[in-house]
Amino acid sequence: MRIDLNADLGEGFGAWTLGDDDALLEIVTSANVACGFHAGDPLTIRRVCEAAVARGVAIGAQVSYRDLAGFGRREMDVPAEELRAEILYQLAAVDGIARAVGGRVTYVKPHGALYNRVIWDAVQARAVVEAVTDYGPLPVLTLPGSAVHGLGAPTVAECFADRAYTPEGALVSRREPGSVLHDPGEVAARAVRMAREGVVTAVDGSQVRVEARSICVHGDTPGAVGLARAVRDALTGAGVAVEAFA
Amino acid sequence: MRIDLNADLGEGFGAWTLGDDDALLEIVTSANVACGFHAGDPLTIRRVCEAAVARGVAIGAQVSYRDLAGFGRREMDVPAEELRAEILYQLAAVDGIARAVGGRVTYVKPHGALYNRVIWDAVQARAVVEAVTDYGPLPVLTLPGSAVHGLGAPTVAECFADRAYTPEGALVSRREPGSVLHDPGEVAARAVRMAREGVVTAVDGSQVRVEARSICVHGDTPGAVGLARAVRDALTGAGVAVEAFA
Amino acid sequence: MRIDLNADLGEGFGAWTLGDDDALLEIVTSANVACGFHAGDPLTIRRVCEAAVARGVAIGAQVSYRDLAGFGRREMDVPAEELRAEILYQLAAVDGIARAVGGRVTYVKPHGALYNRVIWDAVQARAVVEAVTDYGPLPVLTLPGSAVHGLGAPTVAECFADRAYTPEGALVSRREPGSVLHDPGEVAARAVRMAREGVVTAVDGSQVRVEARSICVHGDTPGAVGLARAVRDALTGAGVAVEAFA
Amino acid sequence: MRIDLNADLGEGFGAWTLGDDDALLEIVTSANVACGFHAGDPLTIRRVCEAAVARGVAIGAQVSYRDLAGFGRREMDVPAEELRAEILYQLAAVDGIARAVGGRVTYVKPHGALYNRVIWDAVQARAVVEAVTDYGPLPVLTLPGSAVHGLGAPTVAECFADRAYTPEGALVSRREPGSVLHDPGEVAARAVRMAREGVVTAVDGSQVRVEARSICVHGDTPGAVGLARAVRDALTGAGVAVEAFA
Repeated sequence: MRIDLNADLGEGFGAWTLGDDDALLEIVTSANVACGFHAGDPLTIRRVCEAAVARGVAIGAQVSYRDLAGFGRREMDVPAEELRAEILYQLAAVDGIARAVGGRVTYVKPHGALYNRVIWDAVQARAVVEAVTDYGPLPVLTLPGSAVHGLGAPTVAECFADRAYTPEGALVSRREPGSVLHDPGEVAARAVRMAREGVVTAVDGSQVRVEARSICVHGDTPGAVGLARAVRDALTGAGVAVEAFA
Repeated sequence: MRIDLNADLGEGFGAWTLGDDDALLEIVTSANVACGFHAGDPLTIRRVCEAAVARGVAIGAQVSYRDLAGFGRREMDVPAEELRAEILYQLAAVDGIARAVGGRVTYVKPHGALYNRVIWDAVQARAVVEAVTDYGPLPVLTLPGSAVHGLGAPTVAECFADRAYTPEGALVSRREPGSVLHDPGEVAARAVRMAREGVVTAVDGSQVRVEARSICVHGDTPGAVGLARAVRDALTGAGVAVEAFA
Repeated sequence: MRIDLNADLGEGFGAWTLGDDDALLEIVTSANVACGFHAGDPLTIRRVCEAAVARGVAIGAQVSYRDLAGFGRREMDVPAEELRAEILYQLAAVDGIARAVGGRVTYVKPHGALYNRVIWDAVQARAVVEAVTDYGPLPVLTLPGSAVHGLGAPTVAECFADRAYTPEGALVSRREPGSVLHDPGEVAARAVRMAREGVVTAVDGSQVRVEARSICVHGDTPGAVGLARAVRDALTGAGVAVEAFA
Repeated sequence: MRIDLNADLGEGFGAWTLGDDDALLEIVTSANVACGFHAGDPLTIRRVCEAAVARGVAIGAQVSYRDLAGFGRREMDVPAEELRAEILYQLAAVDGIARAVGGRVTYVKPHGALYNRVIWDAVQARAVVEAVTDYGPLPVLTLPGSAVHGLGAPTVAECFADRAYTPEGALVSRREPGSVLHDPGEVAARAVRMAREGVVTAVDGSQVRVEARSICVHGDTPGAVGLARAVRDALTGAGVAVEAFA
């Protein structure tokens, strides 16, 4: 039994910082590094790549719409050909920096609104996959059921220990009450069940299968880092090996 | 006897275009491709790389300060560590796109204000060279006498057939009258002497050595494309092989 | 009988230009000035405002999503509160520049994807109207039937002499063949009927009412300027006064 | 005896925040609001203006080079005409937002590298003053001795209670050891002497005149807010009225 823990990192920009990269890099096994389009200036990218290499954390390119002002959270109707080129540009830039410091990008994870869009939009999903294939075949980290599947790139499924699930196995919208869980003990216990049994309890009490190779944790608040730490410790304590998938 | 002809290409951005890339790609042997910081969105980069590969034109990364509004023509006091990361980011991004379409970046040319700055600023020159070295040793195209020399990266000297030279071998400032030559016959004849004899007549009539492996031509006006064509034809007619250096 | 002619102007950015502002300012009575979010750097804004003031052309703020790379043509899910602030920012900036050169902004026209979005999206339409109301009550130039109507800001209807209409009075999508008319005589004749009779012939031959106070013309190609000129000349020749609405 | 306390506010951008605006607005009498070029998205601007109006704090436009990635701290050779238009654009945008929420911009303060540049660069100083004059005559907050003086705009002098001064009355460079003072008691005592006597003790022990109407405080660290609070309390305790100059 083994599982990966991934988190978004390098999401500062210039004078601005976001989250505690150093704390998270002690917990996760995969770092989704912002590529400069929603966050992540080149020096920030370099530093987080250096830190990831030093700790043996896998580096992923967290590609996004071009939207600094909206942090990549605003869905955009980008034509497929433009989107494909934008993704390729970001991926190549971060991989080049990662290689300069002794690492390399081993997977891709779409960020924010793009992540949500490619779950259902086959055109944008194909643009992402083609960009990844253009660069070299890398796995794409995504939700099970995403339109990214079956387009020619390998995919890796992830799940969320701190999010409520519907009986159908989808995430409950953040706009719904109770969609995000905050109790470290509860979240850690869910993570262990996800990793060991591939099961989570849905909002109606039913048991839902979540076959994932990675669990996503967050680090943009002090509490979130504590939660991530609790998840890791619980997994290790339960005999689950916490290892990068890539 | 052989010489390279280089020009700035891919300098559009989104809906905006600049210059006639297709016309220039029929003339030059090296394409300085804008990397997105002063011009060059990812799709434009991809298209110009595809066109360069199709014609066998060498691809260079035309790296710049981050300054879309000023087209990279405004000198900036960027700290060395930031500049180094910014150059590396641009170089990697364009190389990744070039490779995706069957080519690769074979040299680097700083753009605009950065080009002028690294002639005398050893700190920024070192930042550029370190970025190029970080990525892999590529030649840097620059003026003879630039501070880029001697810092560990190979350099390739270029000259300008349409610019007036001082007796010391420097370019006369664009602010001076007569600094830019427009007569195609005169410019072409200067190019031939530069390539065959390594000599140009300075503004005071003296003969100045200009040992260059490449001649820079421009293409952002219809007249400039005609001038570039005249230069190429004159070189070929004089038995000079027009070949990429890289 | 009188009609306004409006066109998008000031859509360059830094070193890039788009369209022939000077030619259009001799033809139109209302200038939709880009505000910096999809195009229009501050100096370009200033220059087009100066030229509009010199010719007595009305100045409108052509507000947009923040999307230089996509020229404001990519629909974005901007939260209402952000969008409202972004519109207010753009409107105030251009009005301040217009006033500094002796004019002022007398109307607002959403650009590109935002223009299309507010036709049906009541939330974004309300954000635009609230921003305009925040700044001071200015008319919004839009299509009849847009969701912008009825939200508290005055509206001014426009029509398109070079676009095909459905029997219901909507524009035929640009993706359909025949959606854009290019023959100057035909377009000019349609403009005259629109202005004099408030009627246009739809694609099925039926007569459709288009009650508009302004006709939109384009100027981003040389042919388009000639078309705009033909429209103006035909209107004047038919006894229609070409006058700004604002 | 009265003095103004000013601080930089609204320096977040999108998802990023910087400093504790709410804490500072309880302390200062003048808020230098970022205008979107080095920091400050439109919604952030609106919120800080609303908060300033609610507390009766004066609003200034903290104008900057266009440099989000460098937070306006990288000196730029912007041509005067461009800079003038850029400053006017920022000033108008923030004033428009301020007026929409019941306030208005009553002064201008250049930010970061622009602030330092206009101390000695008469060309950029003139561009700033012309922009301010274009918009309406507003006072410019600056150091005594700045090149901004004497160009036609009113100026207001400021001083820094937490910075070491040379015997000539200039600030000791931040690169020098001891250039920034951190002890709240010492800084507060200096502020009181500055406000009551117009005098500060220089690094060599000599007494230097600093005739300033405003004292600049910072708030981008928790300690800085405490320092600013100590300065305000000491001033009030010493019978100095803390009042906006504008």
